[in-house]
Amino acid sequence: MFTTSILVRFGDLDGAGIAFYPNLVRFVNEAFEDFFAGHVGRPFHEIHGSGIGFPTVKLEMEFLSPVRYGDTVEIKVAVEHLGRSALRLRYEGAVAGRPVFLARNTTAAVDMKAFKPVALPDWLRERLELARG
Amino acid sequence: MFTTSILVRFGDLDGAGIAFYPNLVRFVNEAFEDFFAGHVGRPFHEIHGSGIGFPTVKLEMEFLSPVRYGDTVEIKVAVEHLGRSALRLRYEGAVAGRPVFLARNTTAAVDMKAFKPVALPDWLRERLELARG
Amino acid sequence: MFTTSILVRFGDLDGAGIAFYPNLVRFVNEAFEDFFAGHVGRPFHEIHGSGIGFPTVKLEMEFLSPVRYGDTVEIKVAVEHLGRSALRLRYEGAVAGRPVFLARNTTAAVDMKAFKPVALPDWLRERLELARG
Amino acid sequence: MFTTSILVRFGDLDGAGIAFYPNLVRFVNEAFEDFFAGHVGRPFHEIHGSGIGFPTVKLEMEFLSPVRYGDTVEIKVAVEHLGRSALRLRYEGAVAGRPVFLARNTTAAVDMKAFKPVALPDWLRERLELARG
Repeated sequence: MFTTSILVRFGDLDGAGIAFYPNLVRFVNEAFEDFFAGHVGRPFHEIHGSGIGFPTVKLEMEFLSPVRYGDTVEIKVAVEHLGRSALRLRYEGAVAGRPVFLARNTTAAVDMKAFKPVALPDWLRERLELARG
Repeated sequence: MFTTSILVRFGDLDGAGIAFYPNLVRFVNEAFEDFFAGHVGRPFHEIHGSGIGFPTVKLEMEFLSPVRYGDTVEIKVAVEHLGRSALRLRYEGAVAGRPVFLARNTTAAVDMKAFKPVALPDWLRERLELARG
Repeated sequence: MFTTSILVRFGDLDGAGIAFYPNLVRFVNEAFEDFFAGHVGRPFHEIHGSGIGFPTVKLEMEFLSPVRYGDTVEIKVAVEHLGRSALRLRYEGAVAGRPVFLARNTTAAVDMKAFKPVALPDWLRERLELARG
Repeated sequence: MFTTSILVRFGDLDGAGIAFYPNLVRFVNEAFEDFFAGHVGRPFHEIHGSGIGFPTVKLEMEFLSPVRYGDTVEIKVAVEHLGRSALRLRYEGAVAGRPVFLARNTTAAVDMKAFKPVALPDWLRERLELARG
């Protein structure tokens, strides 16, 4: 299973002194990018440059425990569902072993000019299959 | 039903030229703040100053249509569920009548020092009841 | 002189409980956008859509007093210098009359495809001249 | 001289498809944090936890070349000036050897309760002296 780490920065906090939850959503997207570079084997900006994008269709996210300044959030990424163009990934965030969030993000491969779904390319599907979990 | 409007700024976009979805999550939180100032009748920063916070426990959000630069997102806010300390709000975002997102955010009144749930104060519960929808 | 107002949001704060200074830089850019919509008379996204951009070349900013949650920052915008393609704007931020920042931003009209400076269009130069201060 | 690296993320871009300049200002602050953890030898969140903060007083920043998606910005950090409580740091950002920004940030050690300047602690001054450049 692919894992990445993100450090909580000063500007990630909110008025309550904990990580602002929209910033934790941003962490999920950064984990998605790291998953492409680290597991899929092609950085997301190259894929995006080829005209395919992955807009988020649905996000479900539970915030289990506060995330604080200086924490390193370890995020496990797994593919839960794989359709023709749609895919759903699960992101489990933890700080020093303590679960802090659980997110499910449904996205779809989209032709960014027409903003229409396209089939996942075979080479990508193969890489995604290997990250099932 | 309470409604607020948020303008999509240059910095809200992402590499695909549409609103970055974590920024739309931030819009949901800004609508929550506007709901407190505009419907509840007390700005959120006053409530927060009194030691009560509303950390998000769960977020479910569907992204229905791309949001673009210069769009004004009109967000309808309604209270869907009201517990002892928990509350769930629904946020319907639209651009010129076209639905762009639907979000449900579950939060709870929390004593920010102990980070423990507390009962919603009566005056707040009354205001929230009036926003059922 | 053109003036706009921006409300300090929960997510604009940092770990010190005051507005995170890069977010105040973002406020300067939002004031630039409001200046285009409100004074120049054409929203910035339309100008940008026409292929001209205004990347920031230089920023000088003094932070005079802390900006807090719930503050409304009133920002006065004035044109200080106008070249063939370059322009420098001054932004004076205040909260309830108390100065909180002073920024000078030098930008230039740029053809966004070639990323080369272009002359400011006449209609825009005329509008900018009227905002000298 | 201390150097750190920051990867440009999808959400760091703006409507022009290059890094939004307030996000590059955020990079400067992240380099400041990395300088504390990596050179000073104490993570900034520990220092902040002790009641001392470093609010930015003045920022001067030149944007020399566009920063794009997927770029890794290498940032060199040097201490330019060291007063009783004030310090000015220089940040030189480059992508693959190409300079992209030059920033000077003046800050001061501040007692975060009183929001008044305090003398830099001796142990910190010694570490900062070693980063002169």
